[in-house]
Amino acid sequence: MLDKSKSYLIVGLGLLGGKYALELTRAGFRVDGINRSEKHLQYAIEKGYIRSGKTHDFEDLVSEADYIIFGLYPTTLLEWFKTYGHLLKPGCIFTDVSGVKTGLVEPIQAMCPPGVEFIASHPMAGRETSSVEHAAEVNFAPANFIITPTEKNTAKAIVWVTELAEVLGFEHISTLTVEEHDRMIGYVSQLCHAIAVSLMCANDNSALCEYTGDSFRDLTRIAKINETMWSELFLWNRKNLIEEIDQFDGALAQLRAALVAGDREGLEDMFRLSTQRRGMFDKKTPG
Amino acid sequence: MLDKSKSYLIVGLGLLGGKYALELTRAGFRVDGINRSEKHLQYAIEKGYIRSGKTHDFEDLVSEADYIIFGLYPTTLLEWFKTYGHLLKPGCIFTDVSGVKTGLVEPIQAMCPPGVEFIASHPMAGRETSSVEHAAEVNFAPANFIITPTEKNTAKAIVWVTELAEVLGFEHISTLTVEEHDRMIGYVSQLCHAIAVSLMCANDNSALCEYTGDSFRDLTRIAKINETMWSELFLWNRKNLIEEIDQFDGALAQLRAALVAGDREGLEDMFRLSTQRRGMFDKKTPG
Repeated sequence: MLDKSKSYLIVGLGLLGGKYALELTRAGFRVDGINRSEKHLQYAIEKGYIRSGKTHDFEDLVSEADYIIFGLYPTTLLEWFKTYGHLLKPGCIFTDVSGVKTGLVEPIQAMCPPGVEFIASHPMAGRETSSVEHAAEVNFAPANFIITPTEKNTAKAIVWVTELAEVLGFEHISTLTVEEHDRMIGYVSQLCHAIAVSLMCANDNSALCEYTGDSFRDLTRIAKINETMWSELFLWNRKNLIEEIDQFDGALAQLRAALVAGDREGLEDMFRLSTQRRGMFDKKTPG
Repeated sequence: MLDKSKSYLIVGLGLLGGKYALELTRAGFRVDGINRSEKHLQYAIEKGYIRSGKTHDFEDLVSEADYIIFGLYPTTLLEWFKTYGHLLKPGCIFTDVSGVKTGLVEPIQAMCPPGVEFIASHPMAGRETSSVEHAAEVNFAPANFIITPTEKNTAKAIVWVTELAEVLGFEHISTLTVEEHDRMIGYVSQLCHAIAVSLMCANDNSALCEYTGDSFRDLTRIAKINETMWSELFLWNRKNLIEEIDQFDGALAQLRAALVAGDREGLEDMFRLSTQRRGMFDKKTPG
């Protein structure tokens, strides 16, 4: 059970930062916020997601926090920590929400003051929307919460972030190494976004708007994409993503070749394999 | 208003044939069936989808029908019509449910006895399941119903099939030429299925089952694919589908190149275009 006498600080009140604040406050925790935008900070205060917050001169909030959650993009988080990381007090444990871990976790762990610990995690609950104004729409229950501990992490920190995830409402909590996480996310999330975007960019098919069916809608739901966050995540994980694109391309090329050759059996083999593998996901997939 | 004194015959009581029977019977029409499988025929009779049916010696049913709906795959429909098409009585109007029209509509129209008319149509309401046993799960309201008339079709037949679609529950009825339909379906449906299948076939990623998020589930919902029907539809429409695959591949290659070059702006441009185009579909897309 998380200790409710401890103070929580959310740095970056975006969609996920806002949602974390909302849930922690609802569960009775003391939550403050730091945000660049005054407007969104005020929104979070008015909604009661946080009890107080600052856009600047926030050093005291940082140095008093028992626990911190960074709702920042990886590049921003790195920059922030270079500037303010030394303020965290001994005993402070913090986590993040970043969609890539390589290049983020190790450098930040190396910058931690003595007694301060970074236990990285990833709530796989992004939506096409962003901003604290949509935080209340986010539902964590069916989503995956991934903890990415390194050898620098303690059992205590892992327990804390696990309990945090439970308070936030996640029903599926797992752990992966930083490398495993980034490989996984390359396939399971980033490749899918790359595909959806490519499908929309392939042609100006707005004339076909009236004729879409479920399959098109399903594939392009995520084609409305936050360009700032996703270009950052793609570039941070590009080695893995390029590998995934190449493997996907290989399979598509195989399908194309079967079409050209009029190879019905080749197509059916691919369809059967696809059906079989997708069936595996049904059994295990959460949500 | 469709005339309820007229008799309807469904040839091929699969998922869609079964659903058409169900809806027509519910609306008070007299519906008989012809099906190869005795078991499924009995199922349809027991469920009250049809009042009677036959698996063979069904010539009388065919020659008495005022209206016929063929719930058959294109190849099967062509074969069936070559054998039994001459039995249709003058004044009979019939339609189909096939997902491709080129190579189907013209040959069959050419085979029609005098006074018999084929007005082709496509209910874009396929599901990953098949079989009459799942017919009741199909929902036509949010789906597109496409009529593909040729110069051989009369206004009377177009009116009939439009009213049929309304009785069946479709809220979005449009017309396209045979060529427009097949081009449209190549992009809006077939390419999406080709992508979903390729995504599943790219790698054996069953180890990642536990980590899927919404994006993966969305993109692969249709990866469980009826290999018999889809290999047929793919091959029937392969010229269009190959073109669509190539255009999609071009866009994906552009994205890959931006990754390799570390070109953040190039990525963001694609993401913005994708978001803008997808937004167009939101405004117009049914369902």
